[in-house]
Amino acid sequence: MVSIHNLLHYIEEDAPFGDVTSEAVIPEVSCSAVIRAEQDGTIAGLEEAAELFEYFHVTATCRVRDGEKVRAGDVILALSGNARKILLVERTALNIIGRMSGIATQTRKMADLVASVSQSCRIAGTRKTAPGSRALDKKAVLLGGGDPHRTSLSDGILIKDNHLVLVPLETAIRKARAVSAYRIVEAEVETPEDAQKAATAGADIILLDNMNPAQIRTAVELLKTSNLRNRVILEVSGGVDENSLPSYATCGVDTISMGALTHTVKNFSVTLEIQP
Amino acid sequence: MVSIHNLLHYIEEDAPFGDVTSEAVIPEVSCSAVIRAEQDGTIAGLEEAAELFEYFHVTATCRVRDGEKVRAGDVILALSGNARKILLVERTALNIIGRMSGIATQTRKMADLVASVSQSCRIAGTRKTAPGSRALDKKAVLLGGGDPHRTSLSDGILIKDNHLVLVPLETAIRKARAVSAYRIVEAEVETPEDAQKAATAGADIILLDNMNPAQIRTAVELLKTSNLRNRVILEVSGGVDENSLPSYATCGVDTISMGALTHTVKNFSVTLEIQP
Amino acid sequence: MVSIHNLLHYIEEDAPFGDVTSEAVIPEVSCSAVIRAEQDGTIAGLEEAAELFEYFHVTATCRVRDGEKVRAGDVILALSGNARKILLVERTALNIIGRMSGIATQTRKMADLVASVSQSCRIAGTRKTAPGSRALDKKAVLLGGGDPHRTSLSDGILIKDNHLVLVPLETAIRKARAVSAYRIVEAEVETPEDAQKAATAGADIILLDNMNPAQIRTAVELLKTSNLRNRVILEVSGGVDENSLPSYATCGVDTISMGALTHTVKNFSVTLEIQP
Amino acid sequence: MVSIHNLLHYIEEDAPFGDVTSEAVIPEVSCSAVIRAEQDGTIAGLEEAAELFEYFHVTATCRVRDGEKVRAGDVILALSGNARKILLVERTALNIIGRMSGIATQTRKMADLVASVSQSCRIAGTRKTAPGSRALDKKAVLLGGGDPHRTSLSDGILIKDNHLVLVPLETAIRKARAVSAYRIVEAEVETPEDAQKAATAGADIILLDNMNPAQIRTAVELLKTSNLRNRVILEVSGGVDENSLPSYATCGVDTISMGALTHTVKNFSVTLEIQP
Amino acid sequence: MVSIHNLLHYIEEDAPFGDVTSEAVIPEVSCSAVIRAEQDGTIAGLEEAAELFEYFHVTATCRVRDGEKVRAGDVILALSGNARKILLVERTALNIIGRMSGIATQTRKMADLVASVSQSCRIAGTRKTAPGSRALDKKAVLLGGGDPHRTSLSDGILIKDNHLVLVPLETAIRKARAVSAYRIVEAEVETPEDAQKAATAGADIILLDNMNPAQIRTAVELLKTSNLRNRVILEVSGGVDENSLPSYATCGVDTISMGALTHTVKNFSVTLEIQP
Amino acid sequence: MVSIHNLLHYIEEDAPFGDVTSEAVIPEVSCSAVIRAEQDGTIAGLEEAAELFEYFHVTATCRVRDGEKVRAGDVILALSGNARKILLVERTALNIIGRMSGIATQTRKMADLVASVSQSCRIAGTRKTAPGSRALDKKAVLLGGGDPHRTSLSDGILIKDNHLVLVPLETAIRKARAVSAYRIVEAEVETPEDAQKAATAGADIILLDNMNPAQIRTAVELLKTSNLRNRVILEVSGGVDENSLPSYATCGVDTISMGALTHTVKNFSVTLEIQP
Repeated sequence: MVSIHNLLHYIEEDAPFGDVTSEAVIPEVSCSAVIRAEQDGTIAGLEEAAELFEYFHVTATCRVRDGEKVRAGDVILALSGNARKILLVERTALNIIGRMSGIATQTRKMADLVASVSQSCRIAGTRKTAPGSRALDKKAVLLGGGDPHRTSLSDGILIKDNHLVLVPLETAIRKARAVSAYRIVEAEVETPEDAQKAATAGADIILLDNMNPAQIRTAVELLKTSNLRNRVILEVSGGVDENSLPSYATCGVDTISMGALTHTVKNFSVTLEIQP
Repeated sequence: MVSIHNLLHYIEEDAPFGDVTSEAVIPEVSCSAVIRAEQDGTIAGLEEAAELFEYFHVTATCRVRDGEKVRAGDVILALSGNARKILLVERTALNIIGRMSGIATQTRKMADLVASVSQSCRIAGTRKTAPGSRALDKKAVLLGGGDPHRTSLSDGILIKDNHLVLVPLETAIRKARAVSAYRIVEAEVETPEDAQKAATAGADIILLDNMNPAQIRTAVELLKTSNLRNRVILEVSGGVDENSLPSYATCGVDTISMGALTHTVKNFSVTLEIQP
Repeated sequence: MVSIHNLLHYIEEDAPFGDVTSEAVIPEVSCSAVIRAEQDGTIAGLEEAAELFEYFHVTATCRVRDGEKVRAGDVILALSGNARKILLVERTALNIIGRMSGIATQTRKMADLVASVSQSCRIAGTRKTAPGSRALDKKAVLLGGGDPHRTSLSDGILIKDNHLVLVPLETAIRKARAVSAYRIVEAEVETPEDAQKAATAGADIILLDNMNPAQIRTAVELLKTSNLRNRVILEVSGGVDENSLPSYATCGVDTISMGALTHTVKNFSVTLEIQP
Repeated sequence: MVSIHNLLHYIEEDAPFGDVTSEAVIPEVSCSAVIRAEQDGTIAGLEEAAELFEYFHVTATCRVRDGEKVRAGDVILALSGNARKILLVERTALNIIGRMSGIATQTRKMADLVASVSQSCRIAGTRKTAPGSRALDKKAVLLGGGDPHRTSLSDGILIKDNHLVLVPLETAIRKARAVSAYRIVEAEVETPEDAQKAATAGADIILLDNMNPAQIRTAVELLKTSNLRNRVILEVSGGVDENSLPSYATCGVDTISMGALTHTVKNFSVTLEIQP
Repeated sequence: MVSIHNLLHYIEEDAPFGDVTSEAVIPEVSCSAVIRAEQDGTIAGLEEAAELFEYFHVTATCRVRDGEKVRAGDVILALSGNARKILLVERTALNIIGRMSGIATQTRKMADLVASVSQSCRIAGTRKTAPGSRALDKKAVLLGGGDPHRTSLSDGILIKDNHLVLVPLETAIRKARAVSAYRIVEAEVETPEDAQKAATAGADIILLDNMNPAQIRTAVELLKTSNLRNRVILEVSGGVDENSLPSYATCGVDTISMGALTHTVKNFSVTLEIQP
Repeated sequence: MVSIHNLLHYIEEDAPFGDVTSEAVIPEVSCSAVIRAEQDGTIAGLEEAAELFEYFHVTATCRVRDGEKVRAGDVILALSGNARKILLVERTALNIIGRMSGIATQTRKMADLVASVSQSCRIAGTRKTAPGSRALDKKAVLLGGGDPHRTSLSDGILIKDNHLVLVPLETAIRKARAVSAYRIVEAEVETPEDAQKAATAGADIILLDNMNPAQIRTAVELLKTSNLRNRVILEVSGGVDENSLPSYATCGVDTISMGALTHTVKNFSVTLEIQP
């Protein structure tokens, strides 16, 4: 999902004029090293880290696969090559693994929580990612068992409140529908009535925004009674946290998107150890 | 700190083929909009957000300055221009402000906490930033009253444990010193004895890594008794959290660096509202 | 759809070291100029051309809107500014307008042809675009009344024959479905039976590849009798040209994608005239 | 002629966030594949396609060389490697080969047609290329036996009608001559008299623009009688198509440039087949 | 000749994370400033410097034109705008003006020296430029009255000794001629006999490499007696310095290329003064 | 210090559309070649040249190490690979080695001269580098035994005369100090009194600008008598050349920075020879 081309930008961000320290103090020697998990969780970012090391001619062997669970102390990546190159890539690789595994671990936790109360509902990400980190963040959500949702403004149509200030809901859906048969059309609504309107107008997905579980149940009911429920996917967003998640997941909706999965990430602790 | 050139990469990340929705459903009209804080805290990222909107010919007026405190509900940026351009930039701008203000708000909190127990000690960031977001993250730490620390591998010398597997401490410091009179030389140590060695060998800054407050006090004492304390800046890193921060801040050190300031960011909530 | 950032790459392609001729022979004067259509057709690319001229401080006024019909001789863009800058941008702008209008004009013709025989069927593009010109080509298809289809490999799922060599149809659809509720899943089939299988397995869109009208009608019938027709969008692709288009358009399918719309483009003739 | 750096832009254009389909449905396996011509013609773009596949560690073996003739059904490139990588590159490679071979095939046809009636006259390209595709288009003209003409505004001087609105012909040629002994100076004229003027003023090449064969013969005669013919290369441009080409090629000129070679390209049909 | 896009790379080279000093110590105020020449010479680089300042919204007024002579103390550029932006651009602008004016001043001196002894001979540059500075260096040679020669490997054909190890001279010239009527073909030779061969084979320009004045005169004579002198441009290169220049310039050749014009540049001294 | 990513920009600068000559005249053969020094001196740039050749699959073996001394005639790099690729990279590699070795050779000479009269004083570079060549120039200074000084505006704080027009010296130093404990603070002064002020205010380094040796000695004395000498590093800049260098080096200062090391570079002569 993330090209080596883009990964190299992260190296240039961390070393615009090289790694002054290693160039000054480390001899030109080869060495081995390992990257180790320092906590339990779901790992992500190993493929990207390995690609970066390999680009700099450091042999990188993944000991686990992205998406798998690891325990504190597990070696996740084994390295062998020029010591200066290993140290050049170290922090960038750890930042990638740390952020992506943090996202994957929390997504997995939320996904499991939802799965424990609902067979059909699913967790989804949003575009609330760190600037410059979109592709990493989306891939991590997927690896953690979540639905990555739209990748960007270019690949799905989502009509939001700010659009609706400027154009009526049905007009917006009709215009969106006219663009392409190959693009999902989603519309954000704040009342059960608007959900019904949106479904009638032909939206593929309806985002029930900032509604509480009771309101959501009302909307689901209304759609069912108007025979519209099966035509649309229902997404819930806004005000959902770890505690309230189960109550939303049992409302009869299909996905629950949580900005926090990517905008409020708890770093997953990993470390790189040069072998003596 | 962040050039418009780099900011545009964030737009391309969110819209590689444009904003399909707005192009489809919104007419070519002008409108006004505001960005509003949804919580209390220290704001950051307004300069970058304003630059991005201005690049797309949207007039952007900052209502507060970066680094200032805001209250939930405050308008922080007022916009006026082509509706499609406002919506094109919206999410990127909100992600920048949300992340930077999150960092600034937490940094300000930690800085105030330290200031309440020590007149000389200071909070610092690390290179544990989100991939692609380094410049934003460092600027946010500064705006929150923290010390941004090294920006990258290219601008300061920091000899860490992994270097010391390959070269002895004194050799490393001597080689580092030889590079340039214009570069700070910092060395990471794990014992009071090594702190003394590093100071004797000429390090400018000594990073006391993963030591508890008692060990740190011992190190400070040892440096004082060997008349080395005034020659060096002392940094503490590792295992410091909000609860333990005061006990570290009163050990007689100069800076406490916290990876969590940038690797575990709580998003600051902001919203953009198109004016009807 | 096309950012100024990307448009500038086209200028750099045509002038890596500047415009030698104009710098050598033209004085630093201002002048007016017009871009004129030299044939009848549907215009596209004016927005991009105008943005490029404006970037170089040349005032550019569109006399028609992208997507509108023009007649040979019509002025479509009026320019005023530094003569060297107008000439620097000239060929790039004309190439953009010429290609995009060529695509839009032919798409409009095909779309009208289909509309004359079917109320529901629609013309669509493919990813068979000129290398480096994807965004322009897709926008031109849209402006000509066509459906742009997927923009890239990143924004829609399309399971093709080459995938099916490596994985069975139903497995592929199931795996694709599991990625995200926000991505259309399309599968390419070559027989009515596989069309039925794909619909049953949950594909949103079924691409009937290289089937003749009779086979397509059989497939449509089979889907209807199995009550699957309403669940899926049907696309036809392969072997369709201007002559055979009506016979395909009346088979009961939803879209007909034609690679030729963008891979075999007839340039639309435009010219730029400096005013004496 | 086209660096791997630029070729990678085409991949990023087709997969800004990766190949969603193959990542979702295809296992991590190796496989073989072939690219096959589906029509007769002159092949081009194999070198570029092979470089792209090799960049992604797919072994690519050319079965024919660029510029050679192929028959429908011929295997032109054999591939072996990771299935996902083959599918990631597939469409970009086919688009490059399809466009370049289309240009080479038509150029070869025109070049052969000219060669059948003239021993000295030659077909040439123009800068009327697809935006983003200049280097590919120029190389394809060369491989098809044509003269690629100027690559960009930076590498040759061509004084055109729009320059001549702002500066007299002789002045322009004199100023152009003064730039460098290493740059060809070409001037566009519309009458035999101006051709004579341009030759007298020192142009290396004279472009006879939009003149019919009779006018061209008059111009050639005039240059001969004034002993200027041998000093200049004569190019014809404007209004030449496949039918009128022979009548222009026998007028005594050196090159005939045809914008249609690159602005109105008929795609050459190629296909990639994964081997079961 | 140098696009703003490329100029911005120079800013990013000097400020990858902004201008730490000015951001820290300078208030957000406007001010005036001037750039002043500190020596006599021929100025170059003002257009580029002005474009950079203007990009950052600093008004820049050129007091002289590129290519004109200035005296020590002359104000060459007047600035007005945000003080931080002026200081951000300062060093990059001065480096551009300093290098380009250094090249222009020395080129002007050499060009005048040649002009004092020959009416037809001219000074030329080479591709021996500073890495990253090609376009600036070439433009400065032109502004100093020199011939910029080829800009890159892509815009002229020059057959050198290393080619001739692999292919015979006449073959090389024939193959080069076959590429395009629009490209100068130059061949490097080391003896009068090879000069004759190259001229006979159809080279446009002959580079007499590392020959002394006597050998060069012999070569010129040989070409005259074989009636080839008028068909070719003669370039001398190698071993020419300021002292020997006149003796080469009077040998009857057309251009003398000097690598030193751009590979051994004496900086032209300029300074920027903020007005109190 | 210089990433392959940046090195490739230099290739694209020299071959935006490939190497026309070699593609036209050289067969697709392998060959050997050597790069040879044509003068005595200190070599630099081999690592960068070798990386570039290796990127294009040419085997490159360094015969000496960067920073070592070579004699005229020494082979410094041995090459083996595709002849066209060797010739594609040739000029870029030679320009890099020529410039960097020129800088290293002159820096080494100056460093040795200083070392012959002072045990503690050292030569340093400045930011007066060629546009686009900063990283190369800084690395060459280091390889020649010099101190590279600040790499850019982003990595050290240097308060100069232009800042002091807008803010008083002590305020500036205080504000600069407040940014970060990890950044050197240097202040430029023009009198002994201001040197004392700057030292008192807490500058780490004091730049004595444009002072003659007598004034410098006075400043050193004043700092000694006020017990400030040991707290600061003293840099001298302005008006120092090869002749006056010893008299400055014996004034008791720590570094002498010379813009000429990188702004007025004498190219080091190297040549590439294809082996027959």
